[in-house]
Amino acid sequence: MNTREETSVSEPRVYTETGSLADGRQVHYFNTTADARRASFADKRDLGERAEAGQLRYDPLRDEWIAVSAGRNARPQLPVACPLCPSEGHELTEIPAPDYEVAVFENRFPSFGGALPETGAPVPETGAPGLEISVPATGRCEVVCFSSQHEASFVDLPPERVELVVRTLARRTADLSARGDVAQVFCFENRGVEIGVTLHHPHGQIYGYPYVTPHTRRHLEAAARHREATGRNLFGDLLASERTGPRVVAANDLWTAFVPYAARWPFEVHLYPNERFADLAELPEEYISAFAPLYLEVLRRFDGAFRADASCEPGPMPYMAGWHQAPVNEHRDLAWLRLELVSTRRAAGKVKFLASSESVMGGFVNDLGPEQAARTLRDAL
Amino acid sequence: MNTREETSVSEPRVYTETGSLADGRQVHYFNTTADARRASFADKRDLGERAEAGQLRYDPLRDEWIAVSAGRNARPQLPVACPLCPSEGHELTEIPAPDYEVAVFENRFPSFGGALPETGAPVPETGAPGLEISVPATGRCEVVCFSSQHEASFVDLPPERVELVVRTLARRTADLSARGDVAQVFCFENRGVEIGVTLHHPHGQIYGYPYVTPHTRRHLEAAARHREATGRNLFGDLLASERTGPRVVAANDLWTAFVPYAARWPFEVHLYPNERFADLAELPEEYISAFAPLYLEVLRRFDGAFRADASCEPGPMPYMAGWHQAPVNEHRDLAWLRLELVSTRRAAGKVKFLASSESVMGGFVNDLGPEQAARTLRDAL
Repeated sequence: MNTREETSVSEPRVYTETGSLADGRQVHYFNTTADARRASFADKRDLGERAEAGQLRYDPLRDEWIAVSAGRNARPQLPVACPLCPSEGHELTEIPAPDYEVAVFENRFPSFGGALPETGAPVPETGAPGLEISVPATGRCEVVCFSSQHEASFVDLPPERVELVVRTLARRTADLSARGDVAQVFCFENRGVEIGVTLHHPHGQIYGYPYVTPHTRRHLEAAARHREATGRNLFGDLLASERTGPRVVAANDLWTAFVPYAARWPFEVHLYPNERFADLAELPEEYISAFAPLYLEVLRRFDGAFRADASCEPGPMPYMAGWHQAPVNEHRDLAWLRLELVSTRRAAGKVKFLASSESVMGGFVNDLGPEQAARTLRDAL
Repeated sequence: MNTREETSVSEPRVYTETGSLADGRQVHYFNTTADARRASFADKRDLGERAEAGQLRYDPLRDEWIAVSAGRNARPQLPVACPLCPSEGHELTEIPAPDYEVAVFENRFPSFGGALPETGAPVPETGAPGLEISVPATGRCEVVCFSSQHEASFVDLPPERVELVVRTLARRTADLSARGDVAQVFCFENRGVEIGVTLHHPHGQIYGYPYVTPHTRRHLEAAARHREATGRNLFGDLLASERTGPRVVAANDLWTAFVPYAARWPFEVHLYPNERFADLAELPEEYISAFAPLYLEVLRRFDGAFRADASCEPGPMPYMAGWHQAPVNEHRDLAWLRLELVSTRRAAGKVKFLASSESVMGGFVNDLGPEQAARTLRDAL
């Protein structure tokens, strides 16, 4: 991992290899050295056929697509043998190699994609008239292993590894964007049993959605209205406003991390590059290098948020971290790459649940003031 | 409670009394007899001032209002003494009377309303240009106690009590709609610690939102498009399609309960009256009488869904139940009153979490096929 500094800037920062799993799924290794040769290890398991792919069903009431993938309900919940560890002896996992730095493989229980014909046709954004419209759930779901160390956590990764992870996500974004059946690439990490994480090994996921997601549609509609009204970029104006405001949590020359004015979650931090890029594939190397230490600092602040509360041992902060990226084929000139990091923990031992108001009506209530949340995070280290 | 049958149809089915709590909040009693005299009991507690009201902040990225009410973060979590039981001796609660049938009081920790001037001005639906827009969080939050029995559960109420609850919600809907600062009335019940219920006493809530909620806006936009395209009501067409389909869970002459074609949740049932009404205040008596046994049957089917799984004792099904009602002042001719009942439990001992895809992107994945969910519920009794 420390070989990066010996690499001249003209050489690639990441070396990619691609192998196959027993049921035909792909596994990719992202290495910092040219001679790792991990893809040559074969998957010796007997996995049988891939799970049947699911459906997308159109909800005419909210004008949204829902992935219905009954096969996923059988997926393992905190299995004893970790499928994300490297394979070792008779312990055969999803990663055939005996070691890896960062590895990506197709999800065995995908919400999108799987065993279906590669149609290449994108899903229509808005359903045609009709009350029961469905299409095959094309797209792609991948698992991103951040480390071969089962007990690691993202916050404990060295900055060089975080850089490799971001480069990996950038490569996968570029590759999935070229598939033809992916309309938007979403790279994310769910952390903590409080939000349903079924595998503890440090990992994230990539969803290659076959449609543009509802929130992104709203964001880009708002950005289009803002450009129409002001001639400016909405995200750029928001960032400029927040950079000098009371809700900045951490910042460096190239990135700003802040709690937004109208945060929905008790702890919600948005990390914006100070310049506009449509997606990770466009992100320059210096932004990747500057992102790693800043994000690690924000994650440490998350974990430290409730350390001062001696009334209980809160444990690691549960969080969801997701990259907002431009759709593959539309409005790329409006979008602004950014990471959204949110936690459902509202106090030590207290969780914000999305109950009827949020889930049924979409009406959000945030019990912690955004300025107070920013202050707590600034004071956390 | 059984006096209802002695009441002639020309007499009112519900007798209402209104009293005050120590900090000025209102408490309403809904009785089946004319002479209950519960409002005369005084609240002898020293509650001090009411909590400061919160703010609504406008999110320019999703064009939505967020309620920011930091005072709520201090609310009790499963307190030892139940504030929803009737007052008895030195045990003074939110209900001053020593007994009640159905009682409603203003939430002490409201997301909307509270200690603020009654502006009477509705919140604008879409924010003016500007990145940091806030208004006082007007509106109203109420708690609805379904029974004075602490250990009861909605599913165990007799049908006559369910009728009284629905009549109560209808009255409160009418009263809140007349306030001037309420744009939409939402009556709901959250059940189960799995979704964050902090009080076990059987109760629901009413939110008098000062804005039209995001999901309702989407529904009515879709209904307007559908009317434009077909001349018909979208909800009526959906109901007609579902009534003869494979996802009906229960039905009678006046109501139909079905799992929708594009369900988002593992268990999601929509209960439609077979005719269109804008809200509960419009619902005729015969629909109220027909609703009670059907809803109780659906709740029993929810609780029975995982009984067959001997591998664990699943306990009572967690659920969210919310009434979709028309906004107070707009599109009432498009809306169709209905109850949405959803559960996050996807299998015995397994919960569907809204993690990054749903929470950050709005992309829903349903791991249980809607037809399979309907079959499970039909087979549950």
